[in-house]
Amino acid sequence: LSPFPVTNLPLGIFTAGDGPARAGMPIGDMVLDLGGLADDLRLPDAGRFAAATLNPFLAAGPASWAELRDRGTEWLTAGRYEQPVRRRLIPLAEVTPRLPFQVADYVDFYASEQHATNLGRLLRPGTAPLTPNWKRLPIGYHGRAGTVVVSGTPVVRPSGLRKVGDDVAYGPSERLDIEAEVGFVVGCPSALGRPVPVDDFAAHVFGVCLVNDWSARDIQAFEYVPLGPFLGKSFATSISPWVVPLAALAQAQVPPPGQDPPPDAYLLGKDLHGYDLRLRILLNGHEIARPPFAALYWTPAQMLAHLTANGAALRTGDLYASGTVSGADQDQFGSLMELSWGGQRPLALPDGQTRTFLADGDEVVITAEAPGPDGTRIGFGEVRGRVHPAVAAAIRS
Amino acid sequence: LSPFPVTNLPLGIFTAGDGPARAGMPIGDMVLDLGGLADDLRLPDAGRFAAATLNPFLAAGPASWAELRDRGTEWLTAGRYEQPVRRRLIPLAEVTPRLPFQVADYVDFYASEQHATNLGRLLRPGTAPLTPNWKRLPIGYHGRAGTVVVSGTPVVRPSGLRKVGDDVAYGPSERLDIEAEVGFVVGCPSALGRPVPVDDFAAHVFGVCLVNDWSARDIQAFEYVPLGPFLGKSFATSISPWVVPLAALAQAQVPPPGQDPPPDAYLLGKDLHGYDLRLRILLNGHEIARPPFAALYWTPAQMLAHLTANGAALRTGDLYASGTVSGADQDQFGSLMELSWGGQRPLALPDGQTRTFLADGDEVVITAEAPGPDGTRIGFGEVRGRVHPAVAAAIRS
Repeated sequence: LSPFPVTNLPLGIFTAGDGPARAGMPIGDMVLDLGGLADDLRLPDAGRFAAATLNPFLAAGPASWAELRDRGTEWLTAGRYEQPVRRRLIPLAEVTPRLPFQVADYVDFYASEQHATNLGRLLRPGTAPLTPNWKRLPIGYHGRAGTVVVSGTPVVRPSGLRKVGDDVAYGPSERLDIEAEVGFVVGCPSALGRPVPVDDFAAHVFGVCLVNDWSARDIQAFEYVPLGPFLGKSFATSISPWVVPLAALAQAQVPPPGQDPPPDAYLLGKDLHGYDLRLRILLNGHEIARPPFAALYWTPAQMLAHLTANGAALRTGDLYASGTVSGADQDQFGSLMELSWGGQRPLALPDGQTRTFLADGDEVVITAEAPGPDGTRIGFGEVRGRVHPAVAAAIRS
Repeated sequence: LSPFPVTNLPLGIFTAGDGPARAGMPIGDMVLDLGGLADDLRLPDAGRFAAATLNPFLAAGPASWAELRDRGTEWLTAGRYEQPVRRRLIPLAEVTPRLPFQVADYVDFYASEQHATNLGRLLRPGTAPLTPNWKRLPIGYHGRAGTVVVSGTPVVRPSGLRKVGDDVAYGPSERLDIEAEVGFVVGCPSALGRPVPVDDFAAHVFGVCLVNDWSARDIQAFEYVPLGPFLGKSFATSISPWVVPLAALAQAQVPPPGQDPPPDAYLLGKDLHGYDLRLRILLNGHEIARPPFAALYWTPAQMLAHLTANGAALRTGDLYASGTVSGADQDQFGSLMELSWGGQRPLALPDGQTRTFLADGDEVVITAEAPGPDGTRIGFGEVRGRVHPAVAAAIRS
């Protein structure tokens, strides 16, 4: 079953052969060349789709997003467009997906109670697993926008300072991990100094992608007090190439788990909802976990309201991710740190191998699907990445 | 004495009247309209200087940076250029400086031992003031690139969750602070997966600006464990408009203070130097501190090497700042948190007022100068900002 029925209509940027990068809309096992079609049809906004990034389209705002969705539905279902549309369909297998948008700022949240609890138990045993702020606000921090890469980009094992016995030394991470996350893509900017209310979520956020926030646990463990994760994260963050519009996820809305204590008023709104996205993590082709996004404590709209609560402005292309998605059950954890319980319980793979953290050559794929209209399934494609060996340190040039 | 002698030749972006934004080079109390002059002289790279951002020039690399410096020196000293150059000089007082470059990623370090020690004493009394990692690596984290603003931009007092008695509530920060810092502007990108050695600093970094990393201490205190500062910082970071080239600072190079324990090899190089920049902080026109940049523990080249030690790529427009510059003496501290010792020792201003943290209406100016060639002084202009009252929370639209 294709992840891309006509009820989905995600958007991305692709190249085919030696052609230029342009916008595309996957449908079934094909991708509609939006740049080419908009040109053929002499659409007034054709320039947006001929761009090598979705940013101009994202900036155009909700009315334009809805208009493209209506057009796409008509193109792909109405008989009168058949010929021009058919000419612009390319097999998905023949295109190379590119980074779909220029990432402005990248923020990573920590919104799964189960994940935060697991990490608290592993990293700070003997203390309360959740810090006192955890249920008062969606904890988040800024990551590196410049190393957000598209699915398929090789991930070079990072080096850094980490504990070796009683000492500390620079070398390749020995605890390279994944974090299965969901990302939200901002289209419409906001003004500096003006918080965005929870209920304005859909006026700013265009859509959703999958995120693998690769993490070097040993580098992170040594560096992160007191200013937070830095080199343990900034070497690569992979995202899926096709951004699923919020409009395709109306049927996937679910109430969040209860929030106790009740959040402050700036984190409340008329419409608090999560999304029933069901993630799957595959390691070398073997499914190792099924994290449920619906279990997240904080909702995407609350994360956005928090991110701007101090007046921070949004820009087109801002990406914020949920943090690792982990459910209550052990086969629902979204990182190897949790799945192997800090390396103490190696995972047995069906091919007889075991893993605590990632080995060179390992390939990780994260997929997801959600309930769509008329019994369809809204798929997210995949975010894929293979671990390449560490590069020898570039010391004293 | 002008901060902009012919030995300086900083670069920025300005507008004059209703004219377009373009590159300019301050000289004395004038600014040379580089966009206009390059056009008049039909320079092949004139397009770079007609841009509304320095990024194309920054990306052009060290040979182009040196070439412009040579041209600028000739234009401003050789008789044969007198007439065309004179036509393109505009009084500095008549131009509006703009954000000089599009900020790609913004990283903030924590490289002053005195500042980190002061903060450790204030925030974690009874424990070792420096965390165990502090002398092993230059601690840093990512800030929000989208809220880096040019000098003169109003700073709206941020709101957020902070402790009120025994509870926590959302409201305007009551501990709004400054951080006097120095920023480094990256011109040439680096490849993903390839660390940049310490000795390649000048192949990537074009120049230096002043940074005021506004900080809401109460918001930060509640949010920052375990993932670091977020809303306590992301509402605004102001930078000075004229980027001083590294080439103007050759005479300002000084050896760093001794580093003990010796850093790991990836943090060493042939040429470890700091810069003798002497900062001044003025609050409502009164000088309140003189932080010495030469006192910093970690050098700018070490910060760059650390930032990329995990293979993180650099992009044109990356900005990294030193963290608060504080010297050993109390009148050398670079933040009100330190100057008022956590609010316990209000500063007396000459006008009879006192301050612990910033009041609405307060204006902060940070300036700096450094020794230049031939006994000249290299100035940095200023980074200026005035505090505006908090905006009523935008709750439940």
